[in-house]
Amino acid sequence: MPMNVRESLTEFDIISRFFSDINGLDSRSSAHARSAGSSAIMLGVGDDCALLSLPAGQQLALSVDTMVAGRHFPEAAPAFDIARRAVAVAVSDLAAMGARPLAFTLALTLPAVDSAWLQEFSQGLRQAADAYRMPLIGGDTTRGPLTITVQVHGTLPINGGLRRSGGQAGDHVFVTGSLGDAALALQMLQQTIVVDSHQQEYLQQRFYAPSARVNFGEQLLTRATAAIDISDGLLADLGHICKASGLGARIYSERLPLSSVMATLASRSQAMRYALIGGDDYELCFTASAQQRLSLMDCARRLDLAITEIGELVEDEGVVCLDANGQRMVFATTGYQHFS
Amino acid sequence: MPMNVRESLTEFDIISRFFSDINGLDSRSSAHARSAGSSAIMLGVGDDCALLSLPAGQQLALSVDTMVAGRHFPEAAPAFDIARRAVAVAVSDLAAMGARPLAFTLALTLPAVDSAWLQEFSQGLRQAADAYRMPLIGGDTTRGPLTITVQVHGTLPINGGLRRSGGQAGDHVFVTGSLGDAALALQMLQQTIVVDSHQQEYLQQRFYAPSARVNFGEQLLTRATAAIDISDGLLADLGHICKASGLGARIYSERLPLSSVMATLASRSQAMRYALIGGDDYELCFTASAQQRLSLMDCARRLDLAITEIGELVEDEGVVCLDANGQRMVFATTGYQHFS
Repeated sequence: MPMNVRESLTEFDIISRFFSDINGLDSRSSAHARSAGSSAIMLGVGDDCALLSLPAGQQLALSVDTMVAGRHFPEAAPAFDIARRAVAVAVSDLAAMGARPLAFTLALTLPAVDSAWLQEFSQGLRQAADAYRMPLIGGDTTRGPLTITVQVHGTLPINGGLRRSGGQAGDHVFVTGSLGDAALALQMLQQTIVVDSHQQEYLQQRFYAPSARVNFGEQLLTRATAAIDISDGLLADLGHICKASGLGARIYSERLPLSSVMATLASRSQAMRYALIGGDDYELCFTASAQQRLSLMDCARRLDLAITEIGELVEDEGVVCLDANGQRMVFATTGYQHFS
Repeated sequence: MPMNVRESLTEFDIISRFFSDINGLDSRSSAHARSAGSSAIMLGVGDDCALLSLPAGQQLALSVDTMVAGRHFPEAAPAFDIARRAVAVAVSDLAAMGARPLAFTLALTLPAVDSAWLQEFSQGLRQAADAYRMPLIGGDTTRGPLTITVQVHGTLPINGGLRRSGGQAGDHVFVTGSLGDAALALQMLQQTIVVDSHQQEYLQQRFYAPSARVNFGEQLLTRATAAIDISDGLLADLGHICKASGLGARIYSERLPLSSVMATLASRSQAMRYALIGGDDYELCFTASAQQRLSLMDCARRLDLAITEIGELVEDEGVVCLDANGQRMVFATTGYQHFS
């Protein structure tokens, strides 16, 4: 049992070949953007530590997410997709805090060295790094069951940050995008539904390449009272805001935003279930006062993003979903179980 | 296959029960230390992101390390030991950069929820957090093969940092502590050597609780030209300094510092092998000009740490080890292979 391995020449080869130039700057970036984007990175991949400096008046937001093969994605998923999903999922937490992506690290555990797989994986990583303008600044590669841990780092004005605890009674509850698509995509990946090629493409994209709403998240900093990204399902995640804010919420099932693919492929009751307790959508759920509504709608329009008002925060505890008749809907679980 | 799980109530229970109060401040800390130590942590475990601010004039050093069960530690190792080793190994990279520990995150993948194991693990984590005065500020728990990823964050004066590339021809090469003990400990864990209880305790400590040399690392900031922590073995790690600095090194086998346990348990040639190519010692190897020697010795003495001058940097490429007769020693490999 070769237990005391840490790195090796071969590991250095992997890093140098596949991970040394993921700089979050695609080839179309201007010299100006290049210089602005990398100014805070003092030292990247290849020393004992990476070094980051923060602009004056800024603080660092950070979040870490692990994805385990066969648990968070199918064992046989394309490496390209695994990589970009791992990055997007982590960046989504920055969006939910209102932070701007700065840099990320990657801890990659691999069952074997497979150059073709690594090549694909690094391309997915590069695409995601470019999309969020965020370089890879460090990491660790080890051998073992396929596991990907991404830690993202973002900047935020000092004293800023969209905490879960900021919700006020009477605030309106909003979500970005459409809900439940990732749960529907999972049905497709598990081959329990039949889809056409357009639907397949849409659902693949929603599952493997969720768009972390970072630009809109930044706009929320001065407009929202609380925010969270929807990873465990709307009921569970809105529940976190409620618990942290010492409040409850009432939402209306007929207001929940559903994609046209969802409307086509799922029954109404299935769609409600996916939208309310399906995880992995990585849309934002946030709360704001009524006065902010127009400003929020305007921000969303400029970013070409749909937002939907789905309910309000109330004094009573718990999250309640009302159907079209004003009847309370009941679900067996309020979020996916991780350890069970 | 429950693939789209992210978190669950049960995961929140784990975090709240075992990981919410690891604050890097043991009960003996004064109120003053408490306030100073935590001043940069704006928000810890329990929101979408943790938030860190940096004191003026400081930059952030960060490093991530993964440990896989059966690879970096025995499957059956005590959870307490796994936890403190995972933290120490990561902190060692901060020491090698001259950074002061600030905070850490933990991505923990577990095969099952075992309260007794988690209790032990969190105690080891707490001990290490206290030792380095560094709170746990965030993380992720997932289900899968036992894997522990720790990312450490430290502070460093802007424009400071002990890079691998700073070595100058003629610099002296030093190491802290003694070398090869972790490789010898591995022989003990694999039951290929017989030890008495004192030797067992010493080697267990060296393997599971290496002391990251953070206090001495900080002193090196103004005194050393380059530094690295010895994770892959002296020859390999000194080789990294040499490569980054565009130089070579000559070291002398009879100067290599060996523990008395090593001298007792291993033959001279085994001891040389462990000291030169054994990994996982997490001592520092650093280079400095001759003028710094007295100052370095003085710093080490004040910290009750042994340092040993083992050779010098030279213009010729490669790391050469000379025996007592001035003959070049040759080894089959210059570091443990990770992927092979």
